[in-house]
This record gives sequence, C-alpha cells and structure tokens, in this order.
Amino acid sequence: MPELRRDPVIGRWVIISTERGKRPNKFALEVEPEMGRLCPFCPGNEDKTPSEIIAYAGQGREKNKPGWWMRVVPNKFPALQIEGSLNRKGDGMYDKMNGIGAHEVLIETPDHDKDIGDLDEKKIEDIFWAYRDRIIDLRRDSRFEYILIFKNKGAAAGASLSHPHSQLIATPMVPMRVRQEIIGGKQYFDYKERCVFCDMITQELASNIRVVAENDLFVAFEPFAPRFPFETWILPKNHDSHFEDLQKQESVYLARIVKVVFTKLKTVLDDPPFNYIIHNSPLKDQTLPYYHWHIEIMPKLTKIAGFEWGTGFYINPTPPEEAAQFLKEAD
Amino acid sequence: MPELRRDPVIGRWVIISTERGKRPNKFALEVEPEMGRLCPFCPGNEDKTPSEIIAYAGQGREKNKPGWWMRVVPNKFPALQIEGSLNRKGDGMYDKMNGIGAHEVLIETPDHDKDIGDLDEKKIEDIFWAYRDRIIDLRRDSRFEYILIFKNKGAAAGASLSHPHSQLIATPMVPMRVRQEIIGGKQYFDYKERCVFCDMITQELASNIRVVAENDLFVAFEPFAPRFPFETWILPKNHDSHFEDLQKQESVYLARIVKVVFTKLKTVLDDPPFNYIIHNSPLKDQTLPYYHWHIEIMPKLTKIAGFEWGTGFYINPTPPEEAAQFLKEAD
Repeated sequence: MPELRRDPVIGRWVIISTERGKRPNKFALEVEPEMGRLCPFCPGNEDKTPSEIIAYAGQGREKNKPGWWMRVVPNKFPALQIEGSLNRKGDGMYDKMNGIGAHEVLIETPDHDKDIGDLDEKKIEDIFWAYRDRIIDLRRDSRFEYILIFKNKGAAAGASLSHPHSQLIATPMVPMRVRQEIIGGKQYFDYKERCVFCDMITQELASNIRVVAENDLFVAFEPFAPRFPFETWILPKNHDSHFEDLQKQESVYLARIVKVVFTKLKTVLDDPPFNYIIHNSPLKDQTLPYYHWHIEIMPKLTKIAGFEWGTGFYINPTPPEEAAQFLKEAD
Repeated sequence: MPELRRDPVIGRWVIISTERGKRPNKFALEVEPEMGRLCPFCPGNEDKTPSEIIAYAGQGREKNKPGWWMRVVPNKFPALQIEGSLNRKGDGMYDKMNGIGAHEVLIETPDHDKDIGDLDEKKIEDIFWAYRDRIIDLRRDSRFEYILIFKNKGAAAGASLSHPHSQLIATPMVPMRVRQEIIGGKQYFDYKERCVFCDMITQELASNIRVVAENDLFVAFEPFAPRFPFETWILPKNHDSHFEDLQKQESVYLARIVKVVFTKLKTVLDDPPFNYIIHNSPLKDQTLPYYHWHIEIMPKLTKIAGFEWGTGFYINPTPPEEAAQFLKEAD
C-alpha cells in the first residue's frame, strides 16, 4: 500500500510509492529503450492494459477490443490505490495516510505516431470530454478532494511510453501547488473584488504582446512571469472555476485553440517534449469567484532543470514577449 | 538588463534573463560536450574567468594566478547584474524590477576530478567558510534580501561545467520557497512554541530509522516526506537560524558529516548527479526561534522529473527508511 506523507514544515504531501520501491542499483534502468517492445496502448494489444474504464468507440464494439478512438484504463503501475480507507494517522510529529486514490491513463488515439496537435478537432474535443467524464464519475467518491489531469510527452518530460496519452490522479487532499493558487486568487479577490485570471486576460488582450492565439471563447498567451521558455497558458475568456462545467459549445472552441497552439509549438520548437496540466478547482468547492481553470503547457527545452526544481527559483532565458512573437507568426 | 517578474497569482518571482535570450533553434545546443574544451576553473586558466573576488591561497600568491585551493569569481554569464538600482515598478496589474543581484561561482578545489566527498575535511571546511565570507560581505549591500547557495553536480543536475564548484545568487527579494518554509516554521512555533526542525531532530534521533550519520553537533537523515529517492538533509543539532553564524568549532563537525554523507551517497548510488542547497534565513531577519538552517541534498537519479516539476506533486519510489538503511550501512 503506498503512503501519503506530509512535510511538517511546508505541508507538502508526497506519495511514497512503497510497492514500486527501488533499490539503489535499479535507477539506471529507469529509461528503457522502447524499440522492439510491444506498445500496450496500440489497438490489438488491449489485453496488455488493465480492463478499460470507458472507451469512445463505434457501435457494436466489444469491450477491450479494437475499434475505439479514445480509451481510459487504470494505470498498470498506479501511484495510488483505489481500494481501502484513508486511515489518517500521526507518527509522532508527522502526518500520514494510506495512499488511496485513482491513477488512470487516457489513451488519446489509436494512432501510435499522432500527437494531440495532429488530431482532428473533433478528436481533441473528445479528449477533453473524456477528462470531464472521468472527473464527473470520480468526484462521487467522497474520499477524493482533487483530480490532477496532466500529460507528459517525450522521455525528457517524463513519459515512459510514446503512444499519445494523458494521466489522471485523484487524491484525497488538495495538492500544495493548487492550494497556493487558490489562496493567491482569493487574496487578489479580497483586495480587488475581481478574479486575478480575468484581469490577466483583459490586460493580455489589450496589450497584445504575449498573446499567441485567440478565438471567441478562449485565449492562449505566454504568462508575464513564466518559469520556462515558451510556457503557454490557455484560458477560457469567460470566468469559470471548474473545468468539468465545460459547455458543449465551449469544447468546440477549446479543441480549436488547443490544435492551433500545439501546431505552433511543434513548428517553432521542432516537436518538443512537453508537460501540460489542467489547473482546476478542488472537487468539493462550489463555484469560486476567485479561481479560473486553465491549461498550463511547459515545453521541456533543456535538461538543465536541476537548479530550478531544487531551489524553486526560476531563471528563464527567453522573454515571453519574444516567445509569443515566434509562436504568433508560426502556422 | 535582466528583469525580475512576479507571478500575480502565487507571488513567485522569476528571472527573465533577457541578456542571454534564446531563440527557439538554440535550445538543442544547451548541453555541449565538454570534451576537448579548456576548463576555465583549472589552475593556469584563471584569466578565463572574471577577476576573482576572494581566494584561499598560500602566502605570496599573485591574484588570478595558480596557487589557490578555493577561489570565488563572478559568474561569467550572471543571471542577475550587480550594478544598478532596483527600480520596482508596475506594468498594469503586474510587478517587476530590475534584475539586480550577485551571481558568483565558488571553485571548490583546483583538482578537476575531485568532488566534495573526495576532499580532506579541512578543505571541505574551507568551502563552508567561503560561503560564509561571501554572505557576510554581500549582506552589507542593503539591496539584497536573500542569498541562495547551491551546488549542481553532473549535467543531469544542471551543471554546465564538471570542475567542482558551487554557486551563490544574492536576490533583492526572499524567494517563495524560502518564504513558505519560514511561514511553515512560524505556524508550528505559534502552536507549539518549539522549532519544527528541532522537534524533527529529536524524533529522528529517538526513532533512528531514517538517520544516516551523526556526530556531536550535526545529524544527517532522510526526511519523513522526501520528494526524491535518497533526499538527505544535514542539520545542526543546536538551534541556529543563520548559517553565517557558524562557529569555528561547528565547522569542523560540519565538514566531517558532509564528507561522511557524500562518501556514502557516492558508494551507494555510484557517484550520482546531485543538487544541494543551503536553506538559510533571509538576510534582514534577526535570529529566528522558528527557523533552523540546514542543507538539503537531492540526488538526481532519474530523468523522469517532468511530472514532478510540472505539477508540484511528488511520487517517490524509495521509502526514506530503506534509503537510510542503505546509506547507514555504506562506508
């Protein structure tokens, strides 16, 4: 059983994934070459994953068989375990609980070599519908406080398989990074009585020096203080705290801007490894006037992230205004 | 002039290093092979660095010439610039200031192939004395609020040169990571009237399941909720908020435990890339009852850190109790 442990100083929870405990000499094996290995996410290999949770497929298709265009399965090596109770307890001054949660993989397409920017808008829409479907289903489980949806693309960004996929982790607490954003948004709201993200959108559209793409309902820009070169955010123009409240019509515009942004990133940065994360409200919060869901995309352009993750202090060699210029001009 | 910019949501400052602005096609060049290149930190090449700030050397040695065993120079490509005024200003809703600060390199030894664990205890002591000397000197500059001292070893940990060296960055604000720790320590103190780090030391020594090494004045242990496999902290046993208040006698014991810990890490993990960071109090704070300086060492054992730095959510496959066992048994 994995364990969730809380740092007693800053309150960060980490997953100690005891089941996959690594001995010192095992770390070198972490990045195995994929060549010659069977891809468990390709059609025909459905029995190589745990049994699917949902799939988008044509009529009459049998479960765990080919014919799907989007498939969600439990992670074969889950960081958290779905069965059990939290059993929160102390250990002297420390706090821990059982590593209860969900860890799912969303296989975005049957095509091994396509990535999100290469898909039709309709298929991109379906990726976001699948995220939403899973949130709606999992939030009924009262043990969960937050659902983290993210994508790692490329080995440098942490992907262990190259077939296009995203991941979902449902956690029994709100991660520190999320709490910080919510608190920051609330402080701004208390002072200004406005959403900090709405204000950002207004200023970005007016100044137009960091905007990368825009349509009726969404905007993509390089943030004012980006941690990484070509860090790009996508936000709904209308205030909305919860991604899962996405309207059907909005999803069309979301898919459209996602395709535009990833096509531009691919062109300008030569198909870079990247992470994206859906920044969303905690599950048990009602509609929040001070939080605004959005997507943060972080291309991984240099291996030299050691300093940054060690210190929490970011040095970005590319001004976001320059990055925006490159992206805006690209097709 | 580099720029410091503040994220309007969570208040994180980042350095936008405009001077070294990178065009998209330049990122691939980031990790240049070092082979065949002249090492600017080796004796005889002193003219390849900016003129030295201090050096520990034998009598009669000329400045910027061989004969030193510890040498501190300005970083040739500084992230922050020493001359100028902060000129804090707004940009609509955003906050920024000039990228004023110091960025220095501490060349730890003339020997290109030795690392900190390979040095004599006396020489390790000198590394810490050099850190202290630089803090004492730089804190007289009223523009600076914090001094970050860290070491990247190995390309995977962000080092661009392999000759053993540490870095120092003096900043005109307290980085968010530091503020979080100070706030966390203060909250604990307000509740318990004790230092959270002192309590941790007491519990770790009593339980003795995560302790790696110990002497009269220092202890090294794997923290209860480590972000990374084999993350190791070194703390002074007696409460002390400011590293620069180190007593002469303490430095002897610090060097001793540092040598022990790095020797163990090298043995168990086969000479791993790593980062270490001195977690210290802000320059302008007086002695703090709720903060306790310490060193955090993070071996970089897997390239798969994309998820972690993207989400702020850590999955650690190695329980600290197991890591401690391996380290304790190693020589």
